[in-house]
Amino acid sequence: MPNRVTESAQFTREEVMQAQRCHSMHAEGLRYPVTPIGMHYLLIHYDIPYVDPGAYELEVGGLVQEPLRLTLEDIKARPKVTEAVMMECAGTGRSHASPRTVFVPWFDGAIGCAEWTGTPLGPILEETGLLDGAVEVLFTGHDRGVEQGIEQDFERSLSLEEASREGVMLAYEVNGVPLPPQHGAPLRLVVPGWYGMASVKWLRSITAIAEPFDGFQQGNQYRYKRSADEKGEPVTRQRPRAMMAPPGIPSQLGRTRYVESGQKVPIEGRAWSGWGPVARVEFSADGGRSWEEAELGGRIGRFGWFGWSHEWEAHAPGEYELSCRATDAAGNTQPPDAGEPWNHGTYGINAVQRVPVVVREGGEHEHQN
Amino acid sequence: MPNRVTESAQFTREEVMQAQRCHSMHAEGLRYPVTPIGMHYLLIHYDIPYVDPGAYELEVGGLVQEPLRLTLEDIKARPKVTEAVMMECAGTGRSHASPRTVFVPWFDGAIGCAEWTGTPLGPILEETGLLDGAVEVLFTGHDRGVEQGIEQDFERSLSLEEASREGVMLAYEVNGVPLPPQHGAPLRLVVPGWYGMASVKWLRSITAIAEPFDGFQQGNQYRYKRSADEKGEPVTRQRPRAMMAPPGIPSQLGRTRYVESGQKVPIEGRAWSGWGPVARVEFSADGGRSWEEAELGGRIGRFGWFGWSHEWEAHAPGEYELSCRATDAAGNTQPPDAGEPWNHGTYGINAVQRVPVVVREGGEHEHQN
Repeated sequence: MPNRVTESAQFTREEVMQAQRCHSMHAEGLRYPVTPIGMHYLLIHYDIPYVDPGAYELEVGGLVQEPLRLTLEDIKARPKVTEAVMMECAGTGRSHASPRTVFVPWFDGAIGCAEWTGTPLGPILEETGLLDGAVEVLFTGHDRGVEQGIEQDFERSLSLEEASREGVMLAYEVNGVPLPPQHGAPLRLVVPGWYGMASVKWLRSITAIAEPFDGFQQGNQYRYKRSADEKGEPVTRQRPRAMMAPPGIPSQLGRTRYVESGQKVPIEGRAWSGWGPVARVEFSADGGRSWEEAELGGRIGRFGWFGWSHEWEAHAPGEYELSCRATDAAGNTQPPDAGEPWNHGTYGINAVQRVPVVVREGGEHEHQN
Repeated sequence: MPNRVTESAQFTREEVMQAQRCHSMHAEGLRYPVTPIGMHYLLIHYDIPYVDPGAYELEVGGLVQEPLRLTLEDIKARPKVTEAVMMECAGTGRSHASPRTVFVPWFDGAIGCAEWTGTPLGPILEETGLLDGAVEVLFTGHDRGVEQGIEQDFERSLSLEEASREGVMLAYEVNGVPLPPQHGAPLRLVVPGWYGMASVKWLRSITAIAEPFDGFQQGNQYRYKRSADEKGEPVTRQRPRAMMAPPGIPSQLGRTRYVESGQKVPIEGRAWSGWGPVARVEFSADGGRSWEEAELGGRIGRFGWFGWSHEWEAHAPGEYELSCRATDAAGNTQPPDAGEPWNHGTYGINAVQRVPVVVREGGEHEHQN
């Protein structure tokens, strides 16, 4: 049963229910170097499972010499690391595309850069002694549901090389507090640089396997396909993206921004790529017809987003469309529009952000206070 | 400019953007007596303003003998209380109604019961010495935007009696951590029993005033009106509602539940009312044609929700619709449908929750693992 796609400019009840369960980061949250607790995006395929932290055990098995059962205390007694990690859902930007897959109707907000605390995964895999036949490690969550007619636990794999990389961790805290249930309590995987589907939450087991995993969330979902019946290529690392904290004040519904004319408006934002460090960020105030170089700032930690800033001279009243785009050290950048190239799952849509702004003369509008 | 309403079974882009900024509590979160951090619903009219906690000052003024300017340290040095408080948006249930107002397209999830820590408001009002002409207290937030064409700070008032009630506090922590930005940092009002619009976030000032406040969010919005041009009655306290944590496992998109036949299925939920303690909760497995008495549990704190439970005998395979309804000590209960009576802002829609469940024979479905 393939994903449904829709060309409608309207959204279904199912999509709105998804949007309310799987929420965005607020764009104004880009001002925070580390995304505050509760503001980070959430993607939950089924329900948030209840896992008793006191009774919790992680099974590490499959093609290993010494299977392990680790309690949460065992995990916490291991070497402890804290890393700011840029996370992003592979579906970010989906609602800018047409047609789009019917799942979470993300605009630009399925992002967040939190500080995750846990223990590195690599040494655990070493201690279990992977057998020669092992080619991948499978991560299985406690979350179970029926997706496109197939009942399943959420599970995804990584190659041995990816699973052992610097920064890949089993995390039990975020921003210094125990993981909240919706972020994978009591223990989740965190895979820097990859889209979020790789960072399996509510981790139940880790299994070394002899063949590349081709289960639902890897062989069917999260693939770049031109049509439903094509096998396609796996969705892996985050494509480059720059975003700005929108200036001025918003209209409530349309989210148009209002700023007063004759000002230099400081614009701040963040940029990232899973394919290399961010090399440049550009800014446009005319819908992408002309671009100016923004000032690229430092990176938050080893795996977080980069800051950037620009001063926009909002001299003349009128309507503007602000945009920004990132280019990474590998030369990848962002397309102007969401359909380039379109894919069936509407994954990895990294078209430039477009922020409508009205520059107005002071005093020309109705106000209450 | 009145609210727009729509009869569409589909949702607009504006509504989806609202749904992603203003997120629901996950229904499975009803299992937690205190809603975990980040899972509590959010309603944000404009942007989340950035308020520097170090430079923060609350102005208390208007018709008072001694105006005050209180820093966050001043507030924290005052008597400290922690209360579990049931919060709910006045728009909960809106998307079950037709037509509905175009704002946040809530289904049932604009709820949460967190533990708020702060200082009682009443003694602060006493210390300032309210002058004889004062009839209400106005609360103004730092959040500013353009709503229905009118630029404004978010502000709402309470009568002196309501403002001085037990439980009304200026809160600076939630669930034991400093308020996150999206919940009103560094200081917000918390008004138990009322819908959430009364609990003004990012509090800038408190002003004793001589006339009942009739500004936008009180004289125009948040009123029960039969038509856009009627003045209507103010929206105040939470109407009674019971909700259940849905049993079984979900389908990803439709959120239909699946349970295996021949089981006794434990159902757990919460219930509340702003008009009095919850007196009874009933449960129905046949779409509300027949009702069984559920077991009413204790209340979480003085201002939180009540627990309830029921055992559902899911003997025969088939399709079911589970419902629950609360009745409070004042005799208020929930209507079966969202249109009874309809109001222009689609506020206070407390129709019974309806949870579709498929009871199936074990082994009759396709599964991956």
